[in-house]
Parts: sequence; structure tokens; C-alpha cells
Amino acid sequence: MLGLFKAGDVRTFGTLRVAGLIAVCGIALGLHAQDRASARRAPIAPDAARRVILYIGDGMGDSEITLARYYAAGAAGRLAMDTLPFTGTMTTYGVREDDPAHPVYVPDSAATATAWSTGTKTSNGRISTEPRTDRVLRTIVELAQERGLRTGDVTTAELTDATPAAPAAHVAHRSCQGPADMERCPQNRKRAGGLGAIAEQLVDRQVDVLLGGGAQRFGQRTDAGQTVLESASARGYQIVTNAAMLKLAVSGGRLLGLFAPGNMTPEWTGREALPYPSNVASPQICQTGRRPANEPSLSEMTAKALDVLGADDRGFFLQVEGASIDKESHAANPCGQIGETIAFDRAILVGLEYAAAHPDTLIVVTGDHGHSGQIVGTPTDTDHPTGLLSVLLTKDGSPLTVSYATNGYHRAQDHTGTQIRVAARGPEGAAVRGVIDQTDLFRVIVRALQLSASTMSSRP
Amino acid sequence: MLGLFKAGDVRTFGTLRVAGLIAVCGIALGLHAQDRASARRAPIAPDAARRVILYIGDGMGDSEITLARYYAAGAAGRLAMDTLPFTGTMTTYGVREDDPAHPVYVPDSAATATAWSTGTKTSNGRISTEPRTDRVLRTIVELAQERGLRTGDVTTAELTDATPAAPAAHVAHRSCQGPADMERCPQNRKRAGGLGAIAEQLVDRQVDVLLGGGAQRFGQRTDAGQTVLESASARGYQIVTNAAMLKLAVSGGRLLGLFAPGNMTPEWTGREALPYPSNVASPQICQTGRRPANEPSLSEMTAKALDVLGADDRGFFLQVEGASIDKESHAANPCGQIGETIAFDRAILVGLEYAAAHPDTLIVVTGDHGHSGQIVGTPTDTDHPTGLLSVLLTKDGSPLTVSYATNGYHRAQDHTGTQIRVAARGPEGAAVRGVIDQTDLFRVIVRALQLSASTMSSRP
Repeated sequence: MLGLFKAGDVRTFGTLRVAGLIAVCGIALGLHAQDRASARRAPIAPDAARRVILYIGDGMGDSEITLARYYAAGAAGRLAMDTLPFTGTMTTYGVREDDPAHPVYVPDSAATATAWSTGTKTSNGRISTEPRTDRVLRTIVELAQERGLRTGDVTTAELTDATPAAPAAHVAHRSCQGPADMERCPQNRKRAGGLGAIAEQLVDRQVDVLLGGGAQRFGQRTDAGQTVLESASARGYQIVTNAAMLKLAVSGGRLLGLFAPGNMTPEWTGREALPYPSNVASPQICQTGRRPANEPSLSEMTAKALDVLGADDRGFFLQVEGASIDKESHAANPCGQIGETIAFDRAILVGLEYAAAHPDTLIVVTGDHGHSGQIVGTPTDTDHPTGLLSVLLTKDGSPLTVSYATNGYHRAQDHTGTQIRVAARGPEGAAVRGVIDQTDLFRVIVRALQLSASTMSSRP
Repeated sequence: MLGLFKAGDVRTFGTLRVAGLIAVCGIALGLHAQDRASARRAPIAPDAARRVILYIGDGMGDSEITLARYYAAGAAGRLAMDTLPFTGTMTTYGVREDDPAHPVYVPDSAATATAWSTGTKTSNGRISTEPRTDRVLRTIVELAQERGLRTGDVTTAELTDATPAAPAAHVAHRSCQGPADMERCPQNRKRAGGLGAIAEQLVDRQVDVLLGGGAQRFGQRTDAGQTVLESASARGYQIVTNAAMLKLAVSGGRLLGLFAPGNMTPEWTGREALPYPSNVASPQICQTGRRPANEPSLSEMTAKALDVLGADDRGFFLQVEGASIDKESHAANPCGQIGETIAFDRAILVGLEYAAAHPDTLIVVTGDHGHSGQIVGTPTDTDHPTGLLSVLLTKDGSPLTVSYATNGYHRAQDHTGTQIRVAARGPEGAAVRGVIDQTDLFRVIVRALQLSASTMSSRP
């Protein structure tokens, strides 16, 4: 450390040496620059968070977690997400569009993301808008920004997909991702006086960090004639399009990373599930490392998001989605599904390491809804699942059969309505214990960050 | 209270009045006789339990809990089991008989009950015996008895079924329920120097309270010529065979209640699940109250067990099983499954009320393994589950579709290998947070009751 001082520093050497020692001690204690700044500025209430990382495994219920753990870590192994100290169970149902007093027990990712983003239930397909009335629902990103916090949104799907959309955008239907995709939301078009497509809103909302897929949506022209990407550039976004550029991106300012035209490439692949007898005679081992080198991993995106959002001491709300657990489950591809769960788990480890150095960090790890895959016994000619199945050879060296039977062969497998696991660490983390609803997550984060409790407003 | 004193008490009135006031205050504080006795005898460490109630919902994973809650309490409703403050997730895998170092990811109820009863994994079918070596594994009931605690075992299945068997008996195979059922366990026959059938062992072990079905097993003749029931009578068991007798049973001594020849009658019934289109056009409402009046409910059995076990101040270990959640799931009968889950939940409420008056009570509520049923979206001609399904009309007035597809039509549906919910209240309850294994439950109870830590012994 002292070797960094030049001869010209001699006059101030005494002071610098003290500062240097404090810096060295801080590093030795695992403190970063922003922690030391925080410590100087204000004492932190033990139950208040300055940083929140919300991890959403799309389609990650208990069955999906178990499958990934058993395959990749073994039956007695543990994932990073298994280590969080506070654990509970969360209900995920949505409501009917025509009659919001009635539940819909199997939700989609738009209704679920709206629930934790706004604290209000909506109908399947809606992005942070109210059923029937179409009213805009205030989101956690908006509340965080009002409080002066920075915000981030990271996903392996298109950035305009339902889960990353809901914390920061409002449209009547999730399909309205780019300015050219507005068939189902004419009222949300800018020329109709609306907020625009999801891609436009993410940029207009000035979410500080936006990392994921979906470049094609941002290349579309807005009603004003420019592309969403040009609009982002005009708003000061640093734009990166591959892993190498992401690594070099500077920490200050806003960052938009678009690493694929659509969804990012799944990390693993393997044989899809098939009707019995499928591969009962020859259990498969998944092929790993299938993501092209130009696409960063979810953990690399998460680490960069934390770099950028933690560059100053304002605090932040960051959502990180492992999106293709769901998409690979829809496709009945167990290796794809497991690989995305493990990649998601690695991104959680990045957050846990960050939180170890920043104790004022609330981390919540959960899913948005359960999915189709079930771990079942060894199939035989007389006794086997009625749908698709695949047998995997796990880390234990044992065969594990996964079944997908919520829909027929070559149709998309279905979400399920089961309650799902929620886990947390840090300030307010204990609030996820017991049985909570997805809308309670919104209130947990609002309390943790001491945001305004008002949850809804209407806009013209 | 004072009105109870007779004229003859005048000489001791001063003392009695004080005792009476203490009694009144105790009742006002929700303390029962045994609490006051405990309070006199020894201060209770806040982390030590004198009473443990372990509730096992057989086949009750998160999907099964959600289904019962949504149907009977509504999407925003809560069950009694939802209110426990400490919650976590539990792995349930077993091991191979020929190679116990390798897991079997989908367990049966014998391997799972052995896990929490002994702290050791075994292979499917075994009851508290070790795979390959056939060694006897020491059980939680044996450890509790050594410590001087009373013990109880309550179920809606046959008392000799795997789940109630494992805490107190040891056989090579779960089918060896009565002395005439020993085909698969010749070495366990008494005439071969073994411990006998499960029914014999439950009685020989002198478990204080045994309530459930399975009278037929206890009517079988032992190698000594008498029936198991005669043997129980000789050991001082009070024997009851219907709900009215159970109500009148006295609290002192041992109690054996056998309320059905086989398993007890499910509380609810309804239409079984069928291949699409099943009852999509006419959602069903379950028929409740189907258990004959001579068979007590699980909550009545639980209340009586607590009466008997709590009659003195020795403390106890009580296991209460809701057995037919599993059996009705195997049969793809959603109403039967939900009715048993709700009956189980009512029995949990009995325990929670008991624990409110006895704070030194650890209550654990969990399942033994997941099961087949999944909550899925509205089936259509093009998109529907591949197996059996039924649509229920819930308390919310909304349709809920449940799918069973782990096996074909008219074959038994299969267990699943998913991790399942575990919840607790009371001393050591916080130990169920996070991710635990089923064998950890044994250690939680051993610690809570301050039993000996030795977990295994071999017998000649």
C-alpha cells in the first residue's frame, strides 16, 4: 500500500499513512469503500437494509430445487441457496381478469412478478397493471428510486420478458415487449399517450443496470422514430453486447447489456424427456458449458451489477432472474432445467459473498411458481409415468428419473400452483418464515429499505 | 373455587385458601396441574422440551398442503399447520439395500419413518433395521423410554403400517405386520429368536398409547398361542374398539385403541380422477363426514393421547400420523386426499392448543415424502395433463384442477422425491430452518428431550 505513494506526497505522508492503514484494515476486515463511507455517514439500524438483492428462479419450486441439488451436488450435497438462514413457503396464485375477487390457482410469470413488484395481485398476462381497470400499479423500482436508491434488473431471458419487466414497467399484456409488439396494448403506445413498450419503459425509467437478452426488442423503432437503443444511448447508458465488453464496462453511470437477440443460451443441454421407455436403459449425463463465450454467465452479470450499483453509497434494489429454469421445464429438457438452476445458484453465491462484506444487504431467494417436473421412481413396463420422462445419472452415481406430464408430447409443459420455497438472509430476512404470499415480498422489501408504504397510484 | 370447601375444612382453611388461590391463578395463566407440578419440581431450561409431538402427514409435500388449503380454506386462507413459526425444507431420500452408500431418490414410508425414528438411512421396505446387515437400529421411542418418558403412537392407518411401526419396532420388511404375516421376515419370528411381528413388538415395547386401525393384525395368534390382543391385555393395556369407548377411557396406564380391521375410513370422499376430459365440465364438491361414528377422528385420538400421556409429569414422545393423505393420493382420489389433510390439520390444532398451555412442548409438523398430485391450469382439448385429473370447486368458488400422472389409470400413483416442508414450534423448533435431512429430525428430538446421543446398537 505504502509503495503507491510518490515522492510528491511527502508533505502529506503522515495523514496518508493513517488513511492507508485504515484502508488496509478495512480491506482486511472485508469492508469495501462504500461500507467505510456508510459507517462514517450514519449508523445502520440492525433491521434496515441499504441493499436488496431479490433472486427469482423462474419456475423454481421445491421439486426443481431438489432435482438440481440431487443431480449436481448429490443427495447429501448442498447448494448455495440451501444455506440461507431464514426459510418459509410462499403462495403464488393470481386473480381473474373479469373478477379479481376470485383466485386463479396456476399463475403465469407476469401475474407473479407483478405481485412482488407492486404488492397487488393481478391476472395472468398483466405487467404491473390492475385487472379490469388497467390502472398502473406503483412498483418497487419506482419506490426505490424515489428514495434515492439505485436499481438493477438482470436476467437470462429477454430483458422485456415478464419477470424483469414487472419491477419497472406497466403494460396491459406481457407480449408488448418492443415498440413493434404493441398489438395487445394499443392504449400503452406512446402515440396514444401511454408509457410505451416494455423496452422503452425500462430505459425511460432509467433503471441503472439492465443486463440480459432481448437485443431485438431494443433495436425496434419507437413512435418517435429512433430505436430504443438510440434512446438509451441518449439517456447516458453505457451499452455492451458481449461478455468481454461487460467485463470492461466502467462502474459509474448506467449500464445496458444485451447479450442475445432473444433469450440467452442455456448453460447445459441433453436429451429431452420422451414417452416411456425413453432412456431408461441408458441414463444420461448432461452436457455442460454450452453457453457461447460471448454471452456472460448469470453470475458474471450479477457481479457486474453489484459493482455498478455498489459504486456509490446510495444503496440499491437489484432483481436477478434465472429465467430459463422455466423455459427448459416447458420444453421438458431436464439437463437444460438443471443447468439453469445451477447457474442461478452460482449467481446467488456471488450475492452471498457480497452480503458477507456488506451486512446491510437483504438477500431473498425464491421462485415465481412451481413447474411440471417430478422426481419419480424407476419406471417399469407396468408402472411408469403417463407423460415424458428421462433418467439422469447423478453425482452420486445413481439413476434419477424425472417426469413431465402436465401436457402432451411436443406441447409446452405447464406451470403448477404449488406453494414454493422462499429463503432470506440479512435485515428483515426473518419475515419470510412460515407461510407468506407473493405480495408479502413487496412489503418485506419496502420495510427493509424503509420505503414509502403507499403501494398504488393511478395515472391518467 | 372457595365454594368447594366444606365446613369440615375450617381448620385448614387458611392453607387451603392459599393453595386454592394458587390453583386459580394457575388456571387463569393457562397452566394445568402437570405444569404446576413441573414448576415446583425443576426449572425448565428454555431450550429443553419435556413433551414432543411429531406430526407426520404421510405423502404430504408442498403440493398436497397447497391443494388442501386452497380447496378448504381458500387461496388466502390459512391452515393450523401454516401458523408454526419455524419452517424449513427436508430431504427424504433412502439408500440401496445392496449398497447403502448410494441414495434411492424416491423413498417409501418405511425408509422415511426409519430415518426420523433412528437417525439412520435405510432401504425401502425396512423398519428400523439396517440395510444389508439387518442390524436393529435404536429408536426414538426406546431412547425416550430409557429416559423415563412416556410414549404414544397414533395413526389413521393400521397401527402396524410402516409409519407408526418404525418408532417402536424392528423388522426386515414392512409387510411383517402380524404374527401370521411373517413370510418376508422369518428371522424376526419369535420362534426363530426374533422380536416378533410389528404388532407384537408395539405391545412388548409397552408404548403407552397406541391408537389407530389394524385390529385384524392384533387378532392374529403369536407363536406362543395367544393373540396379540390377549398379550396386550396381559400387559395391562386398557383396550378400546370404538369412539365411545375411547371417550370413556381412563387417563392412567396404557391404552390400545383399534378402531377398524384395517385402515380407518377416510373422512371425505368424491369422484376419483380420470383421464381427460374427466369432470372438466362439472367441477366437484367433496362429500365430507364419511367416517362412521364408531371410528374416532384423528383429532379425538390425539386429544385422548395427550390426556393419557400428560396425566403425570414424566414427559412424553408422541407421534401422530395422518396416514391416508398418502393412500388417497395413491388412489388418485383428490377429495379423499384433501379430507385426510384437513383431518390431520385439525389434529395439529389440538396439539397447538396443548402446547399453548404447556410451553415445554416441541411440536414438529412435516410429511414423509412428496406425492403425485399437482395443481395445474384449466385443461383444454389441446393442452391437458397426460394422466388422470379432476376439477374441484374450492371455497373461493373457483375451479382447481389436480393432476395425477406418475402412473397409469388404475395403477397406484407414485411417491415423488421432492424436498418437503417441515415446521416447528417450541424448544429446539428453530433447528428445522433451512434445509435439513429426515435423519436430522431424530437429532432435533433427541436434543430437545435431552436423550442419550447414542443412535445405534446391535442385538444378537
